[in-house]
Amino acid sequence: MKLYEQYAAEITALISNGQLRPGERLPSVREARARRGISASTIFQAYQRLEREGLIHTRPQSGFYVCAARSALGDELAVTAPRAEANEVEVSELVFEVLRAARSSGIAPLGSAFPGPDLFPLPQLARAAATGLRRLAPNSIVENISPGNPRLRDQIATRYRLDGVRLQTDEIVIGNGALEGLNAALQAVTQPGDTVAIESPTFYAALQAIERLKLKALEIRTDAETGIDIQALGEALSRQRIAACWLMPTFQNPLGSLMPEARKRELVQLLRQHEVPLIEDDVYAELYFGSQRPRPAKAFDEAGLVLHCSSFSKCLAPGYRVGWIAAGRYAQRIQRLTLMTTMAASVPAQVAVLHYLEEGGYDRHLRRLRAALMARMSAAIQAIESAFPAGTRLSRPRGGYFVWVALPPGLDAMRLHQAALQAGIGIAPGHIFSPDHRFADCIRINCGHPAADVLPALQQLGALVHALLRTPA
Amino acid sequence: MKLYEQYAAEITALISNGQLRPGERLPSVREARARRGISASTIFQAYQRLEREGLIHTRPQSGFYVCAARSALGDELAVTAPRAEANEVEVSELVFEVLRAARSSGIAPLGSAFPGPDLFPLPQLARAAATGLRRLAPNSIVENISPGNPRLRDQIATRYRLDGVRLQTDEIVIGNGALEGLNAALQAVTQPGDTVAIESPTFYAALQAIERLKLKALEIRTDAETGIDIQALGEALSRQRIAACWLMPTFQNPLGSLMPEARKRELVQLLRQHEVPLIEDDVYAELYFGSQRPRPAKAFDEAGLVLHCSSFSKCLAPGYRVGWIAAGRYAQRIQRLTLMTTMAASVPAQVAVLHYLEEGGYDRHLRRLRAALMARMSAAIQAIESAFPAGTRLSRPRGGYFVWVALPPGLDAMRLHQAALQAGIGIAPGHIFSPDHRFADCIRINCGHPAADVLPALQQLGALVHALLRTPA
Repeated sequence: MKLYEQYAAEITALISNGQLRPGERLPSVREARARRGISASTIFQAYQRLEREGLIHTRPQSGFYVCAARSALGDELAVTAPRAEANEVEVSELVFEVLRAARSSGIAPLGSAFPGPDLFPLPQLARAAATGLRRLAPNSIVENISPGNPRLRDQIATRYRLDGVRLQTDEIVIGNGALEGLNAALQAVTQPGDTVAIESPTFYAALQAIERLKLKALEIRTDAETGIDIQALGEALSRQRIAACWLMPTFQNPLGSLMPEARKRELVQLLRQHEVPLIEDDVYAELYFGSQRPRPAKAFDEAGLVLHCSSFSKCLAPGYRVGWIAAGRYAQRIQRLTLMTTMAASVPAQVAVLHYLEEGGYDRHLRRLRAALMARMSAAIQAIESAFPAGTRLSRPRGGYFVWVALPPGLDAMRLHQAALQAGIGIAPGHIFSPDHRFADCIRINCGHPAADVLPALQQLGALVHALLRTPA
Repeated sequence: MKLYEQYAAEITALISNGQLRPGERLPSVREARARRGISASTIFQAYQRLEREGLIHTRPQSGFYVCAARSALGDELAVTAPRAEANEVEVSELVFEVLRAARSSGIAPLGSAFPGPDLFPLPQLARAAATGLRRLAPNSIVENISPGNPRLRDQIATRYRLDGVRLQTDEIVIGNGALEGLNAALQAVTQPGDTVAIESPTFYAALQAIERLKLKALEIRTDAETGIDIQALGEALSRQRIAACWLMPTFQNPLGSLMPEARKRELVQLLRQHEVPLIEDDVYAELYFGSQRPRPAKAFDEAGLVLHCSSFSKCLAPGYRVGWIAAGRYAQRIQRLTLMTTMAASVPAQVAVLHYLEEGGYDRHLRRLRAALMARMSAAIQAIESAFPAGTRLSRPRGGYFVWVALPPGLDAMRLHQAALQAGIGIAPGHIFSPDHRFADCIRINCGHPAADVLPALQQLGALVHALLRTPA
């Protein structure tokens, strides 16, 4: 065992036996060095390992803190075990109704799926598009057809490699946002009637895709801190045939949970034993608040069973619809599905993103974006804590821009959704995150928009919750 | 009956009884006015009607000519009646193999699906993209989500209205090329196991979509001049349940056939009697060589049963992937399918096309494009006639950029495809245009690329055909 591993194991033990408690600050690198006489880089490596494992987290300009992974809060938010049988899914209608309402102009965007558009380098992208299109040789248009622009695929692969994730450029297929890749992945690995394991709660687009492809959903208990319950998944895999898992191990939508790296590894190993493909939705991974990008499950994929999907939509270029899938052994099938249905991601969008990346500055933009989102989430959480009644519980994600809020007993989220819309506020009621509308007392709040939009809306929403609790339906 | 209708009926009778023969020149408007003493505008209206009916065609700077609709050539090219049973489709593998080969660089693009990229106003589009993106308010990104940019939908609807086709802006959904709309349409109106009526031969993407959605294909005899055999279709509709028709009434791919307007009307009425939706692929309609855009079947759709798909990919902006579907009563379903799978066409592409259209100049570009394609097709037909052996028959489309060539007996098109690839020439063998590879003696030639690429390749291809006929496989 290396020295940093020894030190990490020591801290892990202190956390496990309760001597270091959730929220407690760890010694700074300098303090630890002075106390223990080991090098700063060893301590830093140990802290990075612990962060990847989900045991500690960083607060910039402040230090390292023990995570609240198993705090009372986490337990309170944990959901009751979903039913053991797979369900047919009929959620689309409700999802569309809710999304349409939230999209109307003049509605405060707490129900939106995207962060504030003010956070993105749109003028730089516009210039990159102009440059890219001006330089585009007419004959090269064909190069952008699926699997996509070769230089852009290289850029994407290189970014993974720099983060310690070995991806093959060959397995990357560029498509129209992550959503196209996710849908193609699901179609590539299932037949109508098959069962797909999902998190509970889950991203509604997974439910829509399952419904559209006439599949069944099996919900697996998912913790608001550490993600899907691997033991419960393992039991389900032993009990019945599962054609695929569709999961979001990093900053899950809507919970914000982050599977520690060790659990991601365990997940990949478990699925490999059962030869079950994992569709990994990783679109929020770049929006971490800690010191390092959490590595995806794909990092541990030796069998080519992980279909890893991501995009630039949430972190660089909303609306450009440039996403990708690293599809392992399914890459050719995915490329063909894309060729048959949309043929390619749009050339102007591909060349704009490519030239933006090649000119540099993406990492600088990402640092600013993360800092802004962390500040916005922190302010939103404070606003919820002050404006919502006692008995409200909420997640505290370490990345992304969603907070999952469990309302006090007695208030149905659809009722709140209707009342909020009347008051000009969009929210995402918990109903749309489960095939059987199990999360009727929860809402997802998007806190990635400017404080001037979000904070007054949260104040008003809190007042609405108070009022609705006083007047039963 | 109005005067122009009387005059048109007179000419129709002359054509029917053989007094005006295929290829014969009609009196010019001036001549007819002098002879008959009726106004130039009446004669012009009559000629337009006859052209829409597919009886005559215009050659710019030359005059009006009787079509070869029922000439020996047309009969020779007519296919044997397809089997009466619907088939499961397994064509994708071969299509991908053929397309991959044709896409390789350095291969003469006679097998390509797109016209030469030199024909498109790419610099103007790049400027329009830059302007559009510069003016884009960050908050307006959401406006481009499916059903798409409202101003672009208006522009599209207006163009139809100017051509005498009443489309509702509300029924238009913008997507990633026509292909996404076509695929969404097929999914919206079928269930796995259903039967879809198609032309024979048909566009391979229809076969791929049918295969992907686990449907069956019923091929209907299709004439190289006048399109699908409506009587055969009517008999099939009476005999069995057909869930949908997927057709290309205007400049069909691969035949180039153009259904006369009266037959389009008849088609829509027939399908309405049976309450069967028509998926109309209209992507080549703007590439007419006559004086007017042939109106689509959608023009006669009073029941909202026509799902009309088109795009800018073949006539303005290849690679931008901006298409649309006017989906009648299925518009909401299509919008939702798009939202679930790709969410939107890319914003840079939508705003580029929008600003290009708003700035004007599209019609001027189209006139130049049509003239160029007509010249290229004419030169290619001459080259085929001179280079290919006797017994070769070919279509003479009045729009688009494909020529369908039936090889002399004894030569299999896959064999020619392999030999041509060795010689650096891509072609599309007839096999990929039918579920049972019925067109084994035909090839589709793309003549929309520059003459310097196309003509030498055709010479070489003709020599190969001669050689292969001398050396049986």
